Amino acid sequence: MSKLTIADKTFTSRLFTGTGKFSSNRLMADAVQSSGSELVTVALKRVDLETPHDDLLEHLKIPGVNLLPNTSGVRTASEAVFATQLAREALGTNWVKLEIHPDARYLMPDPVETLKATEELAKLGFVVLPYIHADPVLCKRLEEAGAAAVMPLGSPIGSNSGLLTREFLRIIIEQSNVPVVVDAGIGAPSHAAEAMEMGADAVLVNTAIAAAGNPVAMGKAFKMAVEAGRMAYEAGLPMVSKGAKASATSPLTSFLS
Amino acid sequence: MSKLTIADKTFTSRLFTGTGKFSSNRLMADAVQSSGSELVTVALKRVDLETPHDDLLEHLKIPGVNLLPNTSGVRTASEAVFATQLAREALGTNWVKLEIHPDARYLMPDPVETLKATEELAKLGFVVLPYIHADPVLCKRLEEAGAAAVMPLGSPIGSNSGLLTREFLRIIIEQSNVPVVVDAGIGAPSHAAEAMEMGADAVLVNTAIAAAGNPVAMGKAFKMAVEAGRMAYEAGLPMVSKGAKASATSPLTSFLS
Amino acid sequence: MSKLTIADKTFTSRLFTGTGKFSSNRLMADAVQSSGSELVTVALKRVDLETPHDDLLEHLKIPGVNLLPNTSGVRTASEAVFATQLAREALGTNWVKLEIHPDARYLMPDPVETLKATEELAKLGFVVLPYIHADPVLCKRLEEAGAAAVMPLGSPIGSNSGLLTREFLRIIIEQSNVPVVVDAGIGAPSHAAEAMEMGADAVLVNTAIAAAGNPVAMGKAFKMAVEAGRMAYEAGLPMVSKGAKASATSPLTSFLS
Amino acid sequence: MSKLTIADKTFTSRLFTGTGKFSSNRLMADAVQSSGSELVTVALKRVDLETPHDDLLEHLKIPGVNLLPNTSGVRTASEAVFATQLAREALGTNWVKLEIHPDARYLMPDPVETLKATEELAKLGFVVLPYIHADPVLCKRLEEAGAAAVMPLGSPIGSNSGLLTREFLRIIIEQSNVPVVVDAGIGAPSHAAEAMEMGADAVLVNTAIAAAGNPVAMGKAFKMAVEAGRMAYEAGLPMVSKGAKASATSPLTSFLS
Repeated sequence: MSKLTIADKTFTSRLFTGTGKFSSNRLMADAVQSSGSELVTVALKRVDLETPHDDLLEHLKIPGVNLLPNTSGVRTASEAVFATQLAREALGTNWVKLEIHPDARYLMPDPVETLKATEELAKLGFVVLPYIHADPVLCKRLEEAGAAAVMPLGSPIGSNSGLLTREFLRIIIEQSNVPVVVDAGIGAPSHAAEAMEMGADAVLVNTAIAAAGNPVAMGKAFKMAVEAGRMAYEAGLPMVSKGAKASATSPLTSFLS
Repeated sequence: MSKLTIADKTFTSRLFTGTGKFSSNRLMADAVQSSGSELVTVALKRVDLETPHDDLLEHLKIPGVNLLPNTSGVRTASEAVFATQLAREALGTNWVKLEIHPDARYLMPDPVETLKATEELAKLGFVVLPYIHADPVLCKRLEEAGAAAVMPLGSPIGSNSGLLTREFLRIIIEQSNVPVVVDAGIGAPSHAAEAMEMGADAVLVNTAIAAAGNPVAMGKAFKMAVEAGRMAYEAGLPMVSKGAKASATSPLTSFLS
Repeated sequence: MSKLTIADKTFTSRLFTGTGKFSSNRLMADAVQSSGSELVTVALKRVDLETPHDDLLEHLKIPGVNLLPNTSGVRTASEAVFATQLAREALGTNWVKLEIHPDARYLMPDPVETLKATEELAKLGFVVLPYIHADPVLCKRLEEAGAAAVMPLGSPIGSNSGLLTREFLRIIIEQSNVPVVVDAGIGAPSHAAEAMEMGADAVLVNTAIAAAGNPVAMGKAFKMAVEAGRMAYEAGLPMVSKGAKASATSPLTSFLS
Repeated sequence: MSKLTIADKTFTSRLFTGTGKFSSNRLMADAVQSSGSELVTVALKRVDLETPHDDLLEHLKIPGVNLLPNTSGVRTASEAVFATQLAREALGTNWVKLEIHPDARYLMPDPVETLKATEELAKLGFVVLPYIHADPVLCKRLEEAGAAAVMPLGSPIGSNSGLLTREFLRIIIEQSNVPVVVDAGIGAPSHAAEAMEMGADAVLVNTAIAAAGNPVAMGKAFKMAVEAGRMAYEAGLPMVSKGAKASATSPLTSFLS
């Protein structure tokens, strides 16, 4: 299967993972490893910036694993820019997953502030991956503003509802010149596989692994599903023929008569 | 992952495959091998019963692969019983996938004739796997009649539409005392993974592999997706929370203020 | 809009209603009237056959309203035949809605017993409307057995989930020579309208009216939705063009340049 | 049913209609009348601003019908502001449906330019109804910017695919302090009814009526469906119980034993 390149990094794995909601950092690290993920989001607000050896970060010192700080919790572009700069200091990376959601109930992203922050951060040399609604025009504008990839949502964060936005993801994938990473709502390996079959470049999964009965096994299951979906995309899936007639078959006349 | 037992056979792979619609028998055999499938359906009507070395059967002499003759093309229980007996002679197996569809357009199975044939064949000692509509009561009656497994459809044969019957499959899986093998309509690895995540015991895939751009790679993709789905089922998927509110997050007050 | 004929009766309304789950018989009767329904199911087991003036039946003495006894609660064909004969005595009609469900949990219909009872009752001169799974082959066999109409389910009884079986209903409607009445699972006027738009001849609604906040207003809402759906079917709906491109529009060059 | 107020106008009908794609202006006017619509969109680019008696506008001189000019074809906020001012001159109304879509293929709305134009036009005293993606945060920001209502899309314009965005519409309706008018993709009366059942304040329909076999009858069908959906919303629909068990029924022991 082909590799994925975003900005200056090349990935073998197309499964990005999150680090929230695990019952322990040890379990989180084991699940990340079983998933084969090479890019792992870390909520800046969950890192103790003043402790030299933060427990979360210590557990993420896994060979081949890159950190992707996210700005979860900020409400405006200027807060996001400030948080991103802090993250660079604390985590030593100029990559950022931009999450700006003024609403604490559904955590839906703000399109206008996200575009503004993307423009500013891209100019400052950051590698920006904005999390956004599955809005095809917004994705094009983010691309023009310098986003290294776009991260449209499949369904509300934490809902595990899968690709409710599939018709819009299809348009985004068709039009995008930067990688498309489907984020939020992926609640089962089958959802991840579907995104990859449609031609998404990668998926980000958090809750479905962290909240599983066995997160380590679930990480492995997602790894396989993402590879299966990508392999199917590259192998050329046959068309879905809704309402299609079955091809007529001749009865067993040869040996029944 | 746990193994699957049907009647007297135990399978490591939970992916059953078909042999129709491939562009050559060579390609079919390669795809079967890459899929890891250990049970392969063969349409009796496609086998030349009078030739000692039928080309299809020669290609299926693969270690670990069992044949499952199907009765595709028969229209009544009595035709099915006769065809099954022929198949035992020709293929040397007492297993049969029962397919009785009087309608040549949509190839929908006949519930009444299928039940009748299942009763007769089970009494004659055959291992009967009936292909049927996703009808929960019919599945129970087939089980009582001696079916070794039930094979409810996901959507019309060849439609690649996935699990349109998912709500009924859920009931069937909950109630069944014999293995449930989802058949027909599985058009992508994500569909196969979804069936496994729901707790189906196995899936049968044909068109989606045979009609793929690269059937050998697609066979591999389905193999991984089925394993991913089963692993997720065993690892315990978190609940789907439709319309669920995101868990509130506290703003970045710690370092923004 | 065209009228609907089943056996010897002609209906202006294509909305059939049930009488269960209402908080009172008075409310039930008012809701039936506001719905405009001309065919109303009555569970035989809910009628006190020994009382000359059963309260339920007294309330259903509404001009233009015909009774359709149903056999809900029976488990076999022979029980159904017996119950139907009782119903003829008690209610003075040779019409029957055949419901045979051995399973008390999901109330799924039994295809084999239903076909058997339909054959017997049709021979005895009854007007039989069997309630069944959305199984296209079974529908054809019931038609051949003498059913006056077929009543495939949209989704499990009482689930209010709408037309989960839509792809199969489409095939049934295309193939049927007797009226198709979609029954069970219709939980909102939009579900009823969709069934009519697809070409169903009528729908049966019970829970969604009976369990509404205001059953009388809900009866009226269903009446309008059924008429809207039928009118749309007759007026010719435009095709659904999934993934269709919007027709290109020329920019406002005329007055912007 | 309750009336709908937007800015300074009160409507009895909750069905807004479009005027494009009809085979003649005569047919358009007849369909508008049968639909009962009191607010009708007119694409500014289709009006001949220099002719005193434009044929389209002449046909729309229907008592009770208000014009809603739309800016279809503009690509930026400044073009939209200019077009809206022209529309006020030409059509004598300060209402405007804001449509800004830089992409001529899918006609997806631009969130950033739409917000900017809404701000400017609201300050200038216009009654602004912006057409946008079903983005909950954007809807709140438009409301804060002075939009008189928000018009989120159900699915791509002209696709007739219905409410693909239903989970997001649900959040928008829950959060909005201005009326929510579902626009685009409503391809059948059942789609319109569903939007109303969810609590949308109104719907806008164009293609499904204009491209119908009989647009006048289809207009009537939509009128009834919208009323049915609203009535059901006000009457209190019972909950959808997915996967719900049917309520157990007692067998017919009373008269079968």
